[in-house]
Amino acid sequence: MTESVLDYMIRLGRAAREASRLLARASTAQKNQALLAAAVALDQARPSLIEANEQDLAAGRAVGLEPALLDRLALTPARIDGMIAGLRQVAALPDPVGSIRDMGYRPSGIQIGKMRVPIGVIGIIYESRPNVTIDAASLCLKSGNATILRGGSEAIHSNRAIAVCIQKGLADAGLPAAAVQVVETTDRAAVGALITLPEYVDVIVPRGGRGLIERISQDARVPVIKHLDGICHVYVDEQANLEKALRIAVNAKCYRYGICGAMETLLVHEQVAADFLPGFAAALEEKGVEIRGCTKTRTVINAQPATEEDWSTEYLAPILSIKVVQTLDDAVAHINHYGSHHTDAIVTEHLGHSQRFLAEVDSSSVMVNAPTCFADGFEYGLGAEIGISTDKLHARGPVGLEGLTSEKYIVIGDGQLRS
Amino acid sequence: MTESVLDYMIRLGRAAREASRLLARASTAQKNQALLAAAVALDQARPSLIEANEQDLAAGRAVGLEPALLDRLALTPARIDGMIAGLRQVAALPDPVGSIRDMGYRPSGIQIGKMRVPIGVIGIIYESRPNVTIDAASLCLKSGNATILRGGSEAIHSNRAIAVCIQKGLADAGLPAAAVQVVETTDRAAVGALITLPEYVDVIVPRGGRGLIERISQDARVPVIKHLDGICHVYVDEQANLEKALRIAVNAKCYRYGICGAMETLLVHEQVAADFLPGFAAALEEKGVEIRGCTKTRTVINAQPATEEDWSTEYLAPILSIKVVQTLDDAVAHINHYGSHHTDAIVTEHLGHSQRFLAEVDSSSVMVNAPTCFADGFEYGLGAEIGISTDKLHARGPVGLEGLTSEKYIVIGDGQLRS
Repeated sequence: MTESVLDYMIRLGRAAREASRLLARASTAQKNQALLAAAVALDQARPSLIEANEQDLAAGRAVGLEPALLDRLALTPARIDGMIAGLRQVAALPDPVGSIRDMGYRPSGIQIGKMRVPIGVIGIIYESRPNVTIDAASLCLKSGNATILRGGSEAIHSNRAIAVCIQKGLADAGLPAAAVQVVETTDRAAVGALITLPEYVDVIVPRGGRGLIERISQDARVPVIKHLDGICHVYVDEQANLEKALRIAVNAKCYRYGICGAMETLLVHEQVAADFLPGFAAALEEKGVEIRGCTKTRTVINAQPATEEDWSTEYLAPILSIKVVQTLDDAVAHINHYGSHHTDAIVTEHLGHSQRFLAEVDSSSVMVNAPTCFADGFEYGLGAEIGISTDKLHARGPVGLEGLTSEKYIVIGDGQLRS
Repeated sequence: MTESVLDYMIRLGRAAREASRLLARASTAQKNQALLAAAVALDQARPSLIEANEQDLAAGRAVGLEPALLDRLALTPARIDGMIAGLRQVAALPDPVGSIRDMGYRPSGIQIGKMRVPIGVIGIIYESRPNVTIDAASLCLKSGNATILRGGSEAIHSNRAIAVCIQKGLADAGLPAAAVQVVETTDRAAVGALITLPEYVDVIVPRGGRGLIERISQDARVPVIKHLDGICHVYVDEQANLEKALRIAVNAKCYRYGICGAMETLLVHEQVAADFLPGFAAALEEKGVEIRGCTKTRTVINAQPATEEDWSTEYLAPILSIKVVQTLDDAVAHINHYGSHHTDAIVTEHLGHSQRFLAEVDSSSVMVNAPTCFADGFEYGLGAEIGISTDKLHARGPVGLEGLTSEKYIVIGDGQLRS
């Protein structure tokens, strides 16, 4: 009798839970050794990686995958270099596990503090890019967590070949094979099982498009670290240095159109709209960005009329909506209402305005005089990121090693009693 | 046409969301003023509180509520004193909102740090005790969150009378009435709506029995801060000071049988079992505690045989299970397998054993040479607690004001661009 998908996933889950206990007490040196040995294994496995990837690409072409998807699926030598460099970089990051903070005495005589510990078992669900296998596995391993990886079925041969290298790394360091497991079936029921087994899986990180993430969040019985839209704003305050505002706003929009930190809506105070918008529009025109403006915007510059829908659209493209606002309050209200609580910036020289914006904008990153495209784990000094969370609980904003850990209370006494 | 329960809850949710924006920027002084004014209002409203409570008690008696439930429902003068003292105590706690940590420069020139902010809107679902209305509302208000309170239907008149006092406090401080809303309908559909409106509610805190919490977790589409069982262990290590171990273990079991931090299972190393158990059993016998032991335990002391079920039972009663283990590893494995990840302690004089226990036991509080009954927000210096979380993400262990907040990244630049 063949094993059902659910039974298979329970088997992976049990093995992961067991491995997580060993990983939680693995030394930093041991975890780094596994990462570095996996890097060596990847380097030596280049021919078999390319061959496995060719199988996926051929299958993808046969079923008519779009060129963009095929491109994401491809393991080029440069991408293999990137995976190797990523492993080494994660090995070089400080180990968050075991650090203790705020240890102090209480009147009862006991000492209380908080110790950072791994979460346990992390399920990663992702789409076509096979390099996510290495990114996710390395961050989870360094933070002491066991991982169950469910990549897209179109990348299954590549992911299996990468998993072989990770297994070599784990074996080299004496860590259990179940520390990193790649789901071997392409049956979609495997995802359904993975997200509904809280006994074995502590958190799910979906990496992919909005559709994937919403589907998973809807059905999960396990907590999900979510990354939904990035509808980011730059607000040019009446007290802005307009020359600085021009540079920041152009960078926020044009650094890269496709990243979640790209500005999608510019808000500008009515007192400075006439001074600011013509030069800004000219700069955007030069870059080929289409502008959609509110009525007031269109009295100052040429623009398509913005519809209500524009204010809540993540273009991820050379399109920008612009709205003129009457007050800082209006700007904050617009951002909190239409934005996606991802990253929003004010440009101002006024201290009080900057402080109000920082306190009142309800987003995972709030910036003053900096472009929203800075929202990134590397720029923030996290070393690497597993995603940018738009949740409010647990991890918020770029999620690095710390976001893959938890804190528990530790108490040290010497026989004190409660009375 | 009457409003549906869902429409009613959406109306409360919208109002709460709007109020949460104002609360997030309320000053510490304003929030404290509201708390202190509510305390004065409660003091002045004693006759009407008692009268409303009498209505609930009469209705409860009429439907044959159990005496224990009636007792929890009763608002005695001492309990009103307790609510007033609680409000003053929360007013005296430091305000966590707006504190900034780890602010530092990045190579790009931008400064990055984390700012503590309110979560937004918190839904509290609880059973018969009306004083939870004040406890929960005061902690949520102090941490800058709007609250929707859904108490038990048997306490509806008491909760409404308490809500009047809270409203007086809010009005006195110029804070919006929707900062604290009591659900006015006793229709159970209100709970179903509250836990499935993520647009309006950011987190749910259920306070009550395991049944309530499991039901809510099962159906919620909003994150839930959960508090499930407390199956707590004390492990007497081979290197324990046995005199200290005796005091700690007796305190852990007998401080109060009904609290979640009470020890339910004692583990003892086989090397010290014969020395430790007879004296310990005698001390428990004196307190009237029933012992259920493993086979080895029963070779040393008189005890009922423990069944497999005993190891995963939260007695909350004068009953204790005892198991003799062969190694520290066995003790840790038993706790991680059978325990509820709440609070567990080791008694040992051996530094290495204490460090391994702290690192490897996967519980929200891990203790050395202290009884598990110390697991409590007041003992931990949190000032007050809204519950003890057995979740791993976000808040873990006793949840005070900090657990009702979130951290967002703040970035300060001066026109730096990403390149």
